[in-house]
Amino acid sequence: MKRTNYAGLIDETYLDQTVTLQGWVQKRRDFGGLIFVDLRDREGLVQLAFSEELSLNALHVAEKMRAEYVVEIQGVVKERVAGQENNKLKSGKIEIQVTEAIILAEAQTPPFEIDNADNVSDEMRLKYRYLDLRRPEMQQNLLTRSKITAATHEFLDANGFIDIETPILAKSTPEGARDYLVPSRIYPGSFYALPQSPQLFKQLLMGAGFDRYYQVARAFRDEDLRGDRQPEFTQLDVEMSFMTQDEIMALVNDWVKAIMSKTVGYDLDVTTIPTLDYADSMRRFGTDKPDMRFDMELQDLSDLMADAEFGVFANAIKNGGQVKAIVVPSAADKYSRKDIDKLAQYIERFGAKGLAWLKVTDEGITGPIAKFLTAKADALLSTTGATSGDLILFAADQAEVVAATLDALRRMTAKELDLIDESKWAFAWVVNWPLFDYQAEEDRWISAHHPFTMPNEEDLPLLDTVEGAHQAHAQSYDLVLNGYELGSGSIRIHRMDVQEKMLAALGFTKEAAHNAFGFLLEGMSYGFPPMGGIALGLDRLAMLLAGRDNIREVIAFPKNSKATEPMTEAPLPVAQVQVVDELGLTAPVYAENSAPNMAEA
Amino acid sequence: MKRTNYAGLIDETYLDQTVTLQGWVQKRRDFGGLIFVDLRDREGLVQLAFSEELSLNALHVAEKMRAEYVVEIQGVVKERVAGQENNKLKSGKIEIQVTEAIILAEAQTPPFEIDNADNVSDEMRLKYRYLDLRRPEMQQNLLTRSKITAATHEFLDANGFIDIETPILAKSTPEGARDYLVPSRIYPGSFYALPQSPQLFKQLLMGAGFDRYYQVARAFRDEDLRGDRQPEFTQLDVEMSFMTQDEIMALVNDWVKAIMSKTVGYDLDVTTIPTLDYADSMRRFGTDKPDMRFDMELQDLSDLMADAEFGVFANAIKNGGQVKAIVVPSAADKYSRKDIDKLAQYIERFGAKGLAWLKVTDEGITGPIAKFLTAKADALLSTTGATSGDLILFAADQAEVVAATLDALRRMTAKELDLIDESKWAFAWVVNWPLFDYQAEEDRWISAHHPFTMPNEEDLPLLDTVEGAHQAHAQSYDLVLNGYELGSGSIRIHRMDVQEKMLAALGFTKEAAHNAFGFLLEGMSYGFPPMGGIALGLDRLAMLLAGRDNIREVIAFPKNSKATEPMTEAPLPVAQVQVVDELGLTAPVYAENSAPNMAEA
Repeated sequence: MKRTNYAGLIDETYLDQTVTLQGWVQKRRDFGGLIFVDLRDREGLVQLAFSEELSLNALHVAEKMRAEYVVEIQGVVKERVAGQENNKLKSGKIEIQVTEAIILAEAQTPPFEIDNADNVSDEMRLKYRYLDLRRPEMQQNLLTRSKITAATHEFLDANGFIDIETPILAKSTPEGARDYLVPSRIYPGSFYALPQSPQLFKQLLMGAGFDRYYQVARAFRDEDLRGDRQPEFTQLDVEMSFMTQDEIMALVNDWVKAIMSKTVGYDLDVTTIPTLDYADSMRRFGTDKPDMRFDMELQDLSDLMADAEFGVFANAIKNGGQVKAIVVPSAADKYSRKDIDKLAQYIERFGAKGLAWLKVTDEGITGPIAKFLTAKADALLSTTGATSGDLILFAADQAEVVAATLDALRRMTAKELDLIDESKWAFAWVVNWPLFDYQAEEDRWISAHHPFTMPNEEDLPLLDTVEGAHQAHAQSYDLVLNGYELGSGSIRIHRMDVQEKMLAALGFTKEAAHNAFGFLLEGMSYGFPPMGGIALGLDRLAMLLAGRDNIREVIAFPKNSKATEPMTEAPLPVAQVQVVDELGLTAPVYAENSAPNMAEA
Repeated sequence: MKRTNYAGLIDETYLDQTVTLQGWVQKRRDFGGLIFVDLRDREGLVQLAFSEELSLNALHVAEKMRAEYVVEIQGVVKERVAGQENNKLKSGKIEIQVTEAIILAEAQTPPFEIDNADNVSDEMRLKYRYLDLRRPEMQQNLLTRSKITAATHEFLDANGFIDIETPILAKSTPEGARDYLVPSRIYPGSFYALPQSPQLFKQLLMGAGFDRYYQVARAFRDEDLRGDRQPEFTQLDVEMSFMTQDEIMALVNDWVKAIMSKTVGYDLDVTTIPTLDYADSMRRFGTDKPDMRFDMELQDLSDLMADAEFGVFANAIKNGGQVKAIVVPSAADKYSRKDIDKLAQYIERFGAKGLAWLKVTDEGITGPIAKFLTAKADALLSTTGATSGDLILFAADQAEVVAATLDALRRMTAKELDLIDESKWAFAWVVNWPLFDYQAEEDRWISAHHPFTMPNEEDLPLLDTVEGAHQAHAQSYDLVLNGYELGSGSIRIHRMDVQEKMLAALGFTKEAAHNAFGFLLEGMSYGFPPMGGIALGLDRLAMLLAGRDNIREVIAFPKNSKATEPMTEAPLPVAQVQVVDELGLTAPVYAENSAPNMAEA
């Protein structure tokens, strides 16, 4: 029989129609001679009713049904008995009175219930991913992701972008994260690398004159994993020639508007998207990815506190640092000393050496450091605008520590106090980034974005010296949504001389630069156009639009925190013979505790 | 300045409009005070005119222009001087009279001319791929490919398919070709494998209830390369639940119709697509991928020749073989004895031990074997329908040799004689395949498609014994276009007991089956729906629709026949320290002649 409808989409508009449905048994209730079954498909649930009057055969089939059996039924859409309606379901007012039923596949009892899997461990969910994915929430997550790519294809196709695939078996290049390597069988000792992005290829495609390129591109990084990282991830990658930063940002705005409309039905007014200078974003929010769904901006008290009696503040300024604060509104009552100690402990990871705080009461400021700041109290309250009932949290240290600390405290307290309007979609552009970033731990300068980022036009002369280059700013633009970096874009260097200076400022000798990027540098000598682009992180975008807090929720078969995939158990030891003989590599003797499991493929 | 038009799209409908264009200098002709430049962008060429009257400044800029310079101009669309029209160009009736010009990027002389690259070696084309891709033909090739994926996204999205990505870092499974392996850093000695197809993942997604899945999926095979093979390739991969073979084929027909319309503007009448039984396809064409743009079907003469005086024929039948022939129309004059010797030599690769042939004249049959067949001449002519002027080519051997030989001769002679209507799009379905295929060289049975293919319903009992299984037929269906296999599909096994029998018939012990495919077999025990799907080869489809004869022409950055990429020189030796320390592998000492080049990344 051919399906006529999805179960979850049938409602009272189908009354008295005969329907054929296929799906999974979610639940069965047997009242002896009368059986109700909740039938589930990807669009939702519908109630099936079986009885002797409707069909004795079908009733007998229903008696055999168990959870997760796959069944096919035919029946008539009827109103439910009054009082039996379920308003949570689209199909809640009707039921299917079944006249024919077949069991297409039986099922053993699953390791967890599909409609009650909230407390199942992540590892179990991944091991039985095909069951986990049956949960309506997971179906919705992947559906949202699919709608994002569908909107992307539609928008970019309509705007003259050409979908071009770039290699997965690519070249290992320095800079960036660790590559995944693929040994070559034909050239033992040589390796392909899985690309960390299609960056160089897309620039070469602009050099080839394609004018507008896009790709839903897989990228790979062999890094240690965190909640929002995966060994492989997906970028919505675009590049275009002959366009300015502003033109590109305007096009991306329209693209994102199309995505928001198709996925969550939100009509994004792109004129409301703010553009912040990187420096302003750092100053106001302590981060380059500000969550602008709420205020609580960082307030600079350095001038006020330079001569404060409170030594921690005065010394921070004296040592070239800052004193800044956030005002947590109406939070004085809500944070006990113990709660604040927890915050203090949390911010140690950012280098903060303690957490100074004040509560504001009708009588003025209170708290352990209040007595050192009595002289500043009025100025403090008028500068920050803090009023009775507010909690003020301070950071006094070098600028980076202050920024990281107050960014974290701002997000954390806003979340704890439920100050964030979860219905908001707060996009922002952050522009005018530094070209380079100094890594104190390693005492070296790295690219703030990547080595192919074009400096601001007026900063080009700075690139004549390495020291000058490190002070330059870039034609780069990041798109932020609700405090997450959605995508990172820039105008690219298209001139060989500029690119060589850029690589020199990163510490490449001319020879090393040409060894690593010779094909690109040579390409630029044959007439490359001005170009720019952006890559949006699909995983993170899908996570945000699906309303989840981990990208694993929007990936069908993600890796766990050990970069393994519990269902297939990849990676696996491969027969030694293949490694040694075919690839010319010697793998360490397989040790039981070094591999995720014992099976040899 | 912002581009107003693509150069190649301007024609006389734009007369007197001011346009701003950006692109590459294809050619410059300097008549002293009057300069013409052919400007190229992705849509084609337009002629620019520079003169002192129009703008002295612009003329001076034009004097500096050389081939492949990137330039930006503003000017007015005007009719060309009478007699200067170029009817080959859309813009051939007009020129742009330039008032402003800027050079955006200079270019050194390219290693080959963009508009005259036909005799450039493949290696040069790949090394300077960004130049090769500037050729209008290559732009069109990749544009065609992009249109195929755009049509696919549009059609499948509109038909309820969900775009779901499956892992690239996956599990190595037996069967099929050699895997590319990726060493794990976290588990030294363990490896991911790059997927040869998303087959198992898409079945699991059906098990998860997504009902309709698709993916433009990259797949990988570490095999020796031929003209139409690449280490990585792309599949248009779909899977659906609760659908029969006929329903799936009908849906694929509509999908392909959408592709043909969007790419080549061809209105495919799907009712004209023939469906051939595998056995009939082999019998009539000697192949499972018949080119149905032309006739010349194989004619079985076994009965007629069983008692032939000509020993080669009679013995072939006696030894259990066949005698078959093709009639090459009006070819008697066109094939000299030397030409036929060449054909004979060519078919040796298929095991043919010579080529028997006859020419038909007004007087009857002629040729070296004519004298042995005089008794059969009338019957031969009436059976085959050969008439005066035709050439008859015979094969007499075991069935496989006859089929391969005559398939090759049929294609080759039709091509040589220009009998193929190149404007035709001859689709065909080939169905009812054997489930297994006997590999004589290795004396073992392999899957004709893959081990997850569902046998015909009535053949299910055959699977109870290994010998029986090998006789079963499958619910599988291949889509053929112009003699190429476009895609291979089947209904899949969704029951664990059937899957276990299938693996047993392939020689897997129960333990080995569960080691390799345990996650799938276990999944099936939790209620998998009936399902089926297909994967179309994007590279081959793009090649055919772009009218090319090698898939490298429709891949932006393909590998060469040594699986290397001459532009980036991947694969490359990677610093030993990374391989040994981080991956726990010992690579062979890097030897000069074992790697494609000396650069160390």
